[in-house]
Amino acid sequence: MSIEDRIRPGDATGIGLEIHRLMGELFPICRSITGDGFRRTLDILRRHIPLDVREVPTGTRVFDWTVPKEWNIRDAYIKDSKGEKIVDFRASNLHVVSYSRPVRAILPLAELKKHLHSLPEHPDWVPYKTTYYKDDWGFCLSHRQFLTLEEGDYDVLIDSTLEDGSLTFGELYLPGETEKEILISAHACHPSLANDNLSGVGLATMLAKHLGTRQHRYSYRFLFIPGTIGAIAWLSLNESRAGRIAAGLVVSGVGDRGEITYKRSRRGLAEIDRAAAHVLGHSGRPYRLLDFHPYGYDERQYCSPGFDLPVGRFSRTPCAEYPEYHTSADNMAFVSAVSLADSFEKIAAILDLIEENRVYQSLNQKCEPQLGKRGLYSSAGANEIALLWVMNLSDGGHSLLDIAERSGLPFAAVREAAEALARAGLLVERPRTSEAGGPL
Amino acid sequence: MSIEDRIRPGDATGIGLEIHRLMGELFPICRSITGDGFRRTLDILRRHIPLDVREVPTGTRVFDWTVPKEWNIRDAYIKDSKGEKIVDFRASNLHVVSYSRPVRAILPLAELKKHLHSLPEHPDWVPYKTTYYKDDWGFCLSHRQFLTLEEGDYDVLIDSTLEDGSLTFGELYLPGETEKEILISAHACHPSLANDNLSGVGLATMLAKHLGTRQHRYSYRFLFIPGTIGAIAWLSLNESRAGRIAAGLVVSGVGDRGEITYKRSRRGLAEIDRAAAHVLGHSGRPYRLLDFHPYGYDERQYCSPGFDLPVGRFSRTPCAEYPEYHTSADNMAFVSAVSLADSFEKIAAILDLIEENRVYQSLNQKCEPQLGKRGLYSSAGANEIALLWVMNLSDGGHSLLDIAERSGLPFAAVREAAEALARAGLLVERPRTSEAGGPL
Amino acid sequence: MSIEDRIRPGDATGIGLEIHRLMGELFPICRSITGDGFRRTLDILRRHIPLDVREVPTGTRVFDWTVPKEWNIRDAYIKDSKGEKIVDFRASNLHVVSYSRPVRAILPLAELKKHLHSLPEHPDWVPYKTTYYKDDWGFCLSHRQFLTLEEGDYDVLIDSTLEDGSLTFGELYLPGETEKEILISAHACHPSLANDNLSGVGLATMLAKHLGTRQHRYSYRFLFIPGTIGAIAWLSLNESRAGRIAAGLVVSGVGDRGEITYKRSRRGLAEIDRAAAHVLGHSGRPYRLLDFHPYGYDERQYCSPGFDLPVGRFSRTPCAEYPEYHTSADNMAFVSAVSLADSFEKIAAILDLIEENRVYQSLNQKCEPQLGKRGLYSSAGANEIALLWVMNLSDGGHSLLDIAERSGLPFAAVREAAEALARAGLLVERPRTSEAGGPL
Repeated sequence: MSIEDRIRPGDATGIGLEIHRLMGELFPICRSITGDGFRRTLDILRRHIPLDVREVPTGTRVFDWTVPKEWNIRDAYIKDSKGEKIVDFRASNLHVVSYSRPVRAILPLAELKKHLHSLPEHPDWVPYKTTYYKDDWGFCLSHRQFLTLEEGDYDVLIDSTLEDGSLTFGELYLPGETEKEILISAHACHPSLANDNLSGVGLATMLAKHLGTRQHRYSYRFLFIPGTIGAIAWLSLNESRAGRIAAGLVVSGVGDRGEITYKRSRRGLAEIDRAAAHVLGHSGRPYRLLDFHPYGYDERQYCSPGFDLPVGRFSRTPCAEYPEYHTSADNMAFVSAVSLADSFEKIAAILDLIEENRVYQSLNQKCEPQLGKRGLYSSAGANEIALLWVMNLSDGGHSLLDIAERSGLPFAAVREAAEALARAGLLVERPRTSEAGGPL
Repeated sequence: MSIEDRIRPGDATGIGLEIHRLMGELFPICRSITGDGFRRTLDILRRHIPLDVREVPTGTRVFDWTVPKEWNIRDAYIKDSKGEKIVDFRASNLHVVSYSRPVRAILPLAELKKHLHSLPEHPDWVPYKTTYYKDDWGFCLSHRQFLTLEEGDYDVLIDSTLEDGSLTFGELYLPGETEKEILISAHACHPSLANDNLSGVGLATMLAKHLGTRQHRYSYRFLFIPGTIGAIAWLSLNESRAGRIAAGLVVSGVGDRGEITYKRSRRGLAEIDRAAAHVLGHSGRPYRLLDFHPYGYDERQYCSPGFDLPVGRFSRTPCAEYPEYHTSADNMAFVSAVSLADSFEKIAAILDLIEENRVYQSLNQKCEPQLGKRGLYSSAGANEIALLWVMNLSDGGHSLLDIAERSGLPFAAVREAAEALARAGLLVERPRTSEAGGPL
Repeated sequence: MSIEDRIRPGDATGIGLEIHRLMGELFPICRSITGDGFRRTLDILRRHIPLDVREVPTGTRVFDWTVPKEWNIRDAYIKDSKGEKIVDFRASNLHVVSYSRPVRAILPLAELKKHLHSLPEHPDWVPYKTTYYKDDWGFCLSHRQFLTLEEGDYDVLIDSTLEDGSLTFGELYLPGETEKEILISAHACHPSLANDNLSGVGLATMLAKHLGTRQHRYSYRFLFIPGTIGAIAWLSLNESRAGRIAAGLVVSGVGDRGEITYKRSRRGLAEIDRAAAHVLGHSGRPYRLLDFHPYGYDERQYCSPGFDLPVGRFSRTPCAEYPEYHTSADNMAFVSAVSLADSFEKIAAILDLIEENRVYQSLNQKCEPQLGKRGLYSSAGANEIALLWVMNLSDGGHSLLDIAERSGLPFAAVREAAEALARAGLLVERPRTSEAGGPL
């Protein structure tokens, strides 16, 4: 792959705006882990990338879990005793607890309050709540409004259905030169929430679009799935294929203004972990690396011991650390096109690194070659120190990332030096084994 | 073993007082590495635990060493020229250098002084001196008294015997479910000294008493031995059994008010070393971990290269760091029941950890199990994070201590989570190999 | 080898003065990578040590390189329009760019300036320049003088020859008890420059002289070579012998007043690397350890991947860090006899350590031996702690350096303890394998 073919876009800011625009289009839809909101979301993504839409029927056993009934909702409100709609699903889909069973009732305030959720510490925000796997119903509202509720009877409607149907997810496979895959996984089951995780959905979509126009060694698989049950369903349906995954990223919370946080795979030193550490370490910007821990997003499933895939998580501020998480304050203003572009750029750089992490063998291992007579000291883009490091460590046992790590040089400098040396006939590429085993 | 069966006592303070009381009973006895003082000490311990008393005859070869003659003493004094007893063995057995040969003589002050020991830097304290393996005699006294000695003839008596007899030690074996043993070793050869090492003797006695009333997986062996020669004698007589020792502690200096100091075994990362580091690291109290070094107490012998046993040393302030060491100031006031109780508690917690350091294998390794449907999120004593860590790492290759170390969680939380998961049928216990090799 | 036979001299200061005197004798000679200056240098060294002088003909292929034409120079100057010599090779050989082709011309100032080199930031210093492997010529002068040059015609002469001949180097082999070699390599191709690298040449010469009068286990090979091409030529001509090199040092820049800097071999933990770290770490003086990097002096060639020899570099201030480097300010006043002596002493201590880094096996591995009955506690030069460490770790798997590293004791204390224990029959020496493989 030549330098020109790399995944990183020329116009990073443009990418940030494109992602932000797509997120804005998706924002109003009422998504849940099943149902038509998820399907409408995939329809919009399909305007950008040729997603396959998969349907897994209610009741399907997926490892320890069962695909639940499909949930759909048409309308929901609370009217006060004057007949005025004081809480309206059409104003914000966060007002209804996701997966609420259908309700039509007149309730006194005391009864109603058992089904109301608000945030005393953030009185203007509406919380996001779900009742997956538990038969219940409820409404969410701001605490400020909650405090204004007067005694009296309330007319409550939730016009939802919970019926046999299916779990829906989107999948895109971009074949590369090898069957070894890089997995990009984004959960897409949240309603009007921006950072968690329309940011991941939007970024992954634009990354797939971008990759679709480029050559790549690895095959790529993009998943747009409901959290937890979606990852479990995909792994269950694709158990025999999972071994092809050579690297992967769960992409979530990539639009806020915080610094980038990379969470390592369970293996800890997988190529994806080292690539992420290298790219972030040379970015000149603050960042954090976290060791694997078995709570968080869908890396929980990819890194379960029976799979133990080399899949890390790429986020900005971890969800437990920003108060807007799972509230109406995680809105389109909470995410920034600059952050989205920066996240895109760094993910593309990590994937570039894995794409180009080759192993070369020196044909001149005894003493240094005479670089001067080959004009290599002035080779465009290659500096002398990088040339010397690559020659010294290209004994067949070191990848370019190994050389970058040991020398402290940026990967790009090492790669450019290796390419210049290969053009000069001093190095030959050697086959290497991918993280997933087998030739690359 | 259920939580209720654990080694730690309910009433820690009570244990501290019991140890202190036993030490007070033992304090006046004139012990040495052989002789009747040692036997009387074991007689008192036998009121609490069913010790076996072993006698190894003088002259027995034990590796490079030979069991020495037995030393006994009836009386000793120095009288001044007026016939007044100015130094009296009956007032404190520290006044006579241990293993002094019999003496009966009239000596001028200049001659006498060659056999007197005092501490100019601590003028009120009487030092503790021995002359093992060297034919000599002497008296110890305070420097303040030493300075008052006037010219004149002194009447000196040491009514001791050095004769063929035996080296005595106490041994208690508590069989468990496996032949693999945990060794607790305390030296008991010092006369009226409290911290070094009646504290260790008292603690080990009460620990044995406590264990005698409980179920345990490991067998336990308690040794009450003279320092150095006793450990060497036991190892020599039990060479073929030493391989059963899966973990061990030399218990010494456990009553002073300083922080706990754990000295690692020669192996450095033995289970006992990791268990001690874990318990102390989660104690919320200051402590120190020392690497193995081949000087100190009987860990010198247990960790000699021909045995290399996983035996660490549990102390509070190391002996080289407190001036009271080997002086009359190491008395019953120097030790505290609170410190004794704390030492007991920590040792019991370390042994608990080893007892309960099981390996489980998950029966649900592919993706997470659905904990909610099993009511595990509300399981008494188990928290969600611990449940997730145990599920994630129970691939058959990690012990509970491995999981506690990697997760940073206290061992108890990990164990409780594992027990809850095993009850729910998600984990099964797998046999593990003890530190000493062979099944546990 | 007894303590008396060690490499370190009794009179360190004397050695520093001897090295300084020899450097002074060599200083005026105009050396380059080939030619008579190099031969004259070797002639002077041969007054001290029985060097073999090797000649490698021009045109010989040595790996990727070719031995260049031989360069010699008789005279060179620049005369101004008044016929006055303003730059004169006979005043300082630095005035002529090394390997300048012959020139005889009258040039206007503008033309001349294209061939002049000076240092604006150090206006009183004359730079040192070369034009190896590039057909050119030039003069070096102080920037102060450069600024005084007036318009006019200049008469330029370089009376040099570039003809088929040979590359010359000096080699001394001192056979020891084993064929395994220790390599000491110094580049000797610089003209009137003191620290870089007459200091290395002088030190290596005196070290060879010193070793010639002593017994040693290892064989020693000293190389006095032109930089880069000399090391490549030697490796090419001795490819099959290189595997005998068990340890080595490139000795360069050892006379300045800065702290010692040791650069590790590519292997990083070779015995030479550990020995250097130990000696410097126990010196009580500031020092630096650098990881291997593939730029610098001839360690580039010895540590190329096809050889990967355990050869480190011993210097004081690294060349990139002192402004006098490659200028007329690197003169005899820049180096100090005290620094030269200190460098000599440390190198000798490192070699001593490797010479004496034996493996002993204890004959008393079960429990401690009774050191007292053997009088070992009072053995001259051995302290009790060292005795205990050596007994504890002499299980056949630890060298004396291993023991010194683990105990934190100085190597000498460990060695003396081992010798005392061996004399007492408690240890026997075991054969060990050198870094180069094969028995020592």
